[in-house]
Amino acid sequence: MSDAHAARRERLREHCGAVGADAALITSAANVRYLTGCAPCGATLLLTRERALLALPADLPPDDTGEHPYADDLAHLAAAPDEDTAATATAAALTLGVGHLVVEDHDLTVSRHRALSAQAAGVRFSDLDFAVERQRVIKDEYEIGDLRIAAEIADQALGELLESILVGRTERHLAMELERRMIDHGADRAAFPVSVGTGSHSGRAGHPPTDRRVEEGDFLTVSLGAQYRGYAVSTARTFVIGAAPATWQVELHRLVFEAQRAGREALGPGVPAAAADRAARDILQAAGHLESPPRPLGHGVGLEVREAPRLGPADMGKLDNRVPVTVGPGVHLPGKGGVRIEDTLVVRPLEEGGPELLTITTKELLAL
Amino acid sequence: MSDAHAARRERLREHCGAVGADAALITSAANVRYLTGCAPCGATLLLTRERALLALPADLPPDDTGEHPYADDLAHLAAAPDEDTAATATAAALTLGVGHLVVEDHDLTVSRHRALSAQAAGVRFSDLDFAVERQRVIKDEYEIGDLRIAAEIADQALGELLESILVGRTERHLAMELERRMIDHGADRAAFPVSVGTGSHSGRAGHPPTDRRVEEGDFLTVSLGAQYRGYAVSTARTFVIGAAPATWQVELHRLVFEAQRAGREALGPGVPAAAADRAARDILQAAGHLESPPRPLGHGVGLEVREAPRLGPADMGKLDNRVPVTVGPGVHLPGKGGVRIEDTLVVRPLEEGGPELLTITTKELLAL
Repeated sequence: MSDAHAARRERLREHCGAVGADAALITSAANVRYLTGCAPCGATLLLTRERALLALPADLPPDDTGEHPYADDLAHLAAAPDEDTAATATAAALTLGVGHLVVEDHDLTVSRHRALSAQAAGVRFSDLDFAVERQRVIKDEYEIGDLRIAAEIADQALGELLESILVGRTERHLAMELERRMIDHGADRAAFPVSVGTGSHSGRAGHPPTDRRVEEGDFLTVSLGAQYRGYAVSTARTFVIGAAPATWQVELHRLVFEAQRAGREALGPGVPAAAADRAARDILQAAGHLESPPRPLGHGVGLEVREAPRLGPADMGKLDNRVPVTVGPGVHLPGKGGVRIEDTLVVRPLEEGGPELLTITTKELLAL
Repeated sequence: MSDAHAARRERLREHCGAVGADAALITSAANVRYLTGCAPCGATLLLTRERALLALPADLPPDDTGEHPYADDLAHLAAAPDEDTAATATAAALTLGVGHLVVEDHDLTVSRHRALSAQAAGVRFSDLDFAVERQRVIKDEYEIGDLRIAAEIADQALGELLESILVGRTERHLAMELERRMIDHGADRAAFPVSVGTGSHSGRAGHPPTDRRVEEGDFLTVSLGAQYRGYAVSTARTFVIGAAPATWQVELHRLVFEAQRAGREALGPGVPAAAADRAARDILQAAGHLESPPRPLGHGVGLEVREAPRLGPADMGKLDNRVPVTVGPGVHLPGKGGVRIEDTLVVRPLEEGGPELLTITTKELLAL
């Protein structure tokens, strides 16, 4: 893996060369992890033409995976107590004669940026402008391997839940249990707060679990994601409680299922990012379900659970091979409930079998 | 409560007047909550001399407490889809003729600040410089009431854990159970990831729970905090597993207990913030326990689980009446384990009985 990280740093060096910078100062936690493989909270990476230096907080909290807190093949510096690691790294840049430093304007606060500029008065600062985020969009096979494991963990947790008794339990308890099961199966953590919505809460995106109990006849929407070695996936399913779903439930589930399938099938290298959203939205709109404002169908996943690209009606750009995205349409009927179905898939060309489905739990309308 | 929020906004208006600003743009989530009572993710408050306007995200996620997403006594604006609420609020400031706007440089990223400055080219921007954070240090009785409930919740969860069988269970499971119990007792959430360390992991601050199982003879350190209506407390206790603690365990526990008591007793209005740290540290150092770098004894709590003031050896300033702080010394002997004992207390004058202990679980060395 350290070869992969070195290759990623080399690509960032090429970017720095292209914009005339001597070095990059990386403060975004996801970007530091991407470029070094390590995730200590508050670390800063200084990448010059020849060197990669990791500045670590004085009072280094343990890594969230419980693993080695820093990559042992990387030179590192310890910040003084209370010192910002970005200041430690900037001091090193000064020592190394850096004259033009690119920094992450979207991550640094105005206060931190001001302090660094004052510290390095002779140095020119410019904005890295999401160069690392752009680099992160297309995943290598190491990353896809971690995403696959994250998806397996979420699927296992969900599968176990489906085998248990659900009637009478609260949304909160089901959400906690799913989180616990993901951690039992090896997740670093839940990638986002697990959402469980039953009855009139079903089908709502990001519904925070309440004390409402699961009842016979309810729709039950479960939305969960595991994070494994930093990589996050997201999935959602909707089931019905009891033996006989109502006609409206069967029809609404079929509609969202069709929309989600159309979205999945529209994914491919070279396809506009908005195409999958359109494919799914057309089906829902034809049935009279208009969302206002429209919620994008999906988004990229990786070291952040929501990253580029976005799959919304107004999103420009085309998808690339090896880009993992979520596809998750939903319909919520106020007071009644609804359906949400979401997968994480990796964009692949047709020659390789088309989109690779990572979250493989069945999308049928199971009656539990 | 809305009177209390209005009074807080009035104090901020006074600050704006004193620095010659026409309005303040508040983007920090904790500060927005403090000034309005509402906690929608991504909201921005514009406070002018006459008005308080809350800009809300277009796709407003539900409030994390599941309660009303915004204060209904406050005027509010909805951002356009994908629009930064700070931009929405800045547009309103322009309409209202604001010429000098104070913003939170410690919260705004360089990118956001640049976008706002470009949007409001004729407006002077200056830094609010933690004015709201300074205002938040001394709590009113509404806030202390919420902190008291948060402490009760943490105590209840801990008390229930002590009644259960512990031997053979993993740190991870105990941590998950404590979190679940806090939520069952009404917490919004855990104020920070629950830390459970057994055996050689005991006594470590912020130890992330592992799959290590509790064994006979172990020290067991549990560190947890509840968040209630946004207000967070923090507490830690160390117990011993099995009937007969070893002599070193009894002695180490007594030492940390004495240090923690000395720290608590040193709290008072007008007392230097460093005094409690010194009182506790002197006792640990006299017994040969030196920390390098020194970890501060404690810190303020409130809408953030770690806020001003800090109680470290080098911290200046004096404590005030009605400032809630943590007092939590610890000793960790590598390979062997250790003890950490932490409370949340409110600084009160001697006439009112001295520091008010919020986290009341016993600090004896219980053999479980």
